[in-house]
Amino acid sequence: MRPAKFPRLSPSALAARRKEVASRLGKVLPPAALLTEPDELRPFECDGLSAYRQPPMAVAMPDRTDQVQAVLTICREMAVPVVARGAGTGLSGGALPLADGVLLNLSRMNQVLGIDLANRLARVQPGVRNLQISEIVAPHGLYYAPDPSSQIACSIGGNVAENAGGVHCLKYGLTVHNVAEVEIVTMEGQRLTLGGEALDSPGYDLLAFIHGSEGLLAVITEIAVRLLPVPRCAQVAVAAFGDVAAAGGAVAGIVASGVLPAGLEMMDRGCIDAVNSFLDVDYPECAALVLCELDGTQQEVASQIIAVTRILEHAGATGVRVSRNEAERLKLWSGRKAAFPAVGRMSPDYYCMDGTIPRRHLARVLKEIQALSGRFGLPVVNVFHAGDGNMHPLILYDANREGELETAERLGGAILEACVAVGGTITGEHGVGIEKIDQMCVQFGEGELRQFHDLKAAFDPDGLLNPGKAVPTLARCAEFGAMHVHGGKLPFPELERF
Amino acid sequence: MRPAKFPRLSPSALAARRKEVASRLGKVLPPAALLTEPDELRPFECDGLSAYRQPPMAVAMPDRTDQVQAVLTICREMAVPVVARGAGTGLSGGALPLADGVLLNLSRMNQVLGIDLANRLARVQPGVRNLQISEIVAPHGLYYAPDPSSQIACSIGGNVAENAGGVHCLKYGLTVHNVAEVEIVTMEGQRLTLGGEALDSPGYDLLAFIHGSEGLLAVITEIAVRLLPVPRCAQVAVAAFGDVAAAGGAVAGIVASGVLPAGLEMMDRGCIDAVNSFLDVDYPECAALVLCELDGTQQEVASQIIAVTRILEHAGATGVRVSRNEAERLKLWSGRKAAFPAVGRMSPDYYCMDGTIPRRHLARVLKEIQALSGRFGLPVVNVFHAGDGNMHPLILYDANREGELETAERLGGAILEACVAVGGTITGEHGVGIEKIDQMCVQFGEGELRQFHDLKAAFDPDGLLNPGKAVPTLARCAEFGAMHVHGGKLPFPELERF
Repeated sequence: MRPAKFPRLSPSALAARRKEVASRLGKVLPPAALLTEPDELRPFECDGLSAYRQPPMAVAMPDRTDQVQAVLTICREMAVPVVARGAGTGLSGGALPLADGVLLNLSRMNQVLGIDLANRLARVQPGVRNLQISEIVAPHGLYYAPDPSSQIACSIGGNVAENAGGVHCLKYGLTVHNVAEVEIVTMEGQRLTLGGEALDSPGYDLLAFIHGSEGLLAVITEIAVRLLPVPRCAQVAVAAFGDVAAAGGAVAGIVASGVLPAGLEMMDRGCIDAVNSFLDVDYPECAALVLCELDGTQQEVASQIIAVTRILEHAGATGVRVSRNEAERLKLWSGRKAAFPAVGRMSPDYYCMDGTIPRRHLARVLKEIQALSGRFGLPVVNVFHAGDGNMHPLILYDANREGELETAERLGGAILEACVAVGGTITGEHGVGIEKIDQMCVQFGEGELRQFHDLKAAFDPDGLLNPGKAVPTLARCAEFGAMHVHGGKLPFPELERF
Repeated sequence: MRPAKFPRLSPSALAARRKEVASRLGKVLPPAALLTEPDELRPFECDGLSAYRQPPMAVAMPDRTDQVQAVLTICREMAVPVVARGAGTGLSGGALPLADGVLLNLSRMNQVLGIDLANRLARVQPGVRNLQISEIVAPHGLYYAPDPSSQIACSIGGNVAENAGGVHCLKYGLTVHNVAEVEIVTMEGQRLTLGGEALDSPGYDLLAFIHGSEGLLAVITEIAVRLLPVPRCAQVAVAAFGDVAAAGGAVAGIVASGVLPAGLEMMDRGCIDAVNSFLDVDYPECAALVLCELDGTQQEVASQIIAVTRILEHAGATGVRVSRNEAERLKLWSGRKAAFPAVGRMSPDYYCMDGTIPRRHLARVLKEIQALSGRFGLPVVNVFHAGDGNMHPLILYDANREGELETAERLGGAILEACVAVGGTITGEHGVGIEKIDQMCVQFGEGELRQFHDLKAAFDPDGLLNPGKAVPTLARCAEFGAMHVHGGKLPFPELERF
């Protein structure tokens, strides 16, 4: 829902505003760093949630922090909203532009500024790719642990904005646990440093606060990430189960044993079949597959593999395979890592859900998802970070079939509400963006939403950073309540749709 | 510095106000839960920073959340400031009362509300003691990991407010990493739930934000803590070194090896001597002692002990002793754990500093502390959480000697500024309180302090929660700049001094 202060502009009014904005931004950015032609804007009209597209009024592409300050200062003076974008891989529409806003693309700020080996920190600009960090420090036997599936492409600035996780976040934590310091620029053009090298800082924990704030509080302009030594040894155990409940029991057993796996994943039969036909990985054709990775010293891994194998067998695994070398370990993971593109081949479109539930309800929620899938008439395959209960139901649909996108979204909403109903949350790691903004009305009460808005206002009093994303207004929630009753008509009338 | 809106009241005005406050609070609290007589107020006039004492106007002792809501609502209507207190063990004066304020004592909210074994959570009221949690869940093979030295007495609510650490926080994290959910009551009387069972929550990370907020943002009324399985096995290696630099090198070597100790501590000769004369622990008389604890499965510990012993010897340890059983492990730790009371026997008074530095500067900062000790003419002994660089220099003095308290404080301030100068921070775990509020002016710039104040205002617009603590006003910083030049006269004229 568009905040009242940003009324829709007529085409001629928009053109005039664009001209004025371009003129002012053109004074603080080099020509190549400012885009205003329709063809130039199109690549930025959506992020990874490609069902929603909206070209911005202009795209600004700074390569230095002082340019970011200048752009934000001008936009604030002109009351122009700003949407920040990293690599555009986000899955919840957090970087979806506004028709009358500036899209602030940080991907040209892609320098590694320094590596501090003694302190195991790397200082980088926000456009540096997640995997690039590990590649750069690999010669020193170090790496950056958080590994979202998009890590080949996603930006570290975006990772901070979304507090990204990944397969290994079970053992190594989320982005916030792997970042020491962040420099931000506020809408007032002020540069602030949050955090520091120490384990904890005095004052308020602004470093944690900025993580997961989805572009609403400030623009991230520099990050000091914590590096870890590459584990000496890693092995994965892949176990087949005849039913999902048994696989869920195995996951619970592993966690209860006190072993902390580097990764603990599950895939259902639909996903296994998709992967087997996409890659030469040959997963067993079973109801559910569990992948459990252990890393550490050789002795640690050796003893943990024994313990985990015992637990898997005791829980009813019909077969357990353990990687014998690094090549085999990567091969066994390759299927899981290719789950999304594999599913993408099965169906013209898919809608990737992202919810988190208490682990103990895994089997029950999967049953409910199956039931909902039948009721709404669309297939759902499941892959998830079983270790922390973060689920990714993938809803298969065909956008060319009339009404199927809407059905997919309603099914998705119902799945998320089922997650919340068992005490879970509407997002594990993909953020709220525009995608789940209505479900925020279900998960939070009025008191909490007011608090969120007051804190946002302390950072961005004019509400110019990424308006309409992540945290719904109370008015929206009231309307969502009404809409929900009437069958959940799509809530984004002001955005152009593909 | 007293905020302008809280002018000092004359004794008769104070008495009248007390009467009015008592009358209104008396309608929402049982008689035994409201204290107003001078003798009743005295036990609450200071916390662990006993050099500063100030009886409050009244003490309110709720045992239920709705009573907390009622008290805060009344105080807000009357514009009466409120200072929250747990067990009063804090070391930075965070619970030091205000003469015209209400001291809100949470220690009667001391119920364990429930233990969720499947999910490994314990839900408790804020007055429950830290160690009490572990005692209660021990029969289930579980424990609560953060172990501040005061854990026998300190409250979990206070732990959240200070984001307390402890010897084992190196491996198990700070309080914020071990808490799933917190219920708070704001000054507006609103009850909010922060966090949840999932690894991450959508919206802003208010759970992290409340941790370490030192009573400035809200009153903590319920906490769901995460429980861990008690490690199967734990061993400690105690190594003696002929000089501090070698001990520092050993610490760096252990951390660099990738081993993550459960605890990694260091004590200097002054501390060793104090402990040896206080307890029957017989530490080697050396320049520096390193204690390194490993925990986990038997195989993990066995292999880590070998690795750590090798590193200690390679770094120049003159002797390494490894505990052979649980009794010996506890005995070897008993000296370190009794360091503060042992030092307390050496000197009429001591002032415990708390600063954090990047580990690599350990030897250098210790040298500087020695030099400062000589310059100011007061002895300093050192004990620290070497693993994360959190130092506790203990300044020995005699408050009965004219000017020695002031000298101790100036020496303390100089030590903290030395920590900041090498890129460290002014508090590791004891909080800012009143004690380090001036050093906040050194560590943070105007932009950051403004941001802190704006965020505080989003929670507590009238500035009634713990005013004058933790985050200095810009006016105070300006004055501190001037005071600092003139030799650092004590900045708390409005508070009664012992």
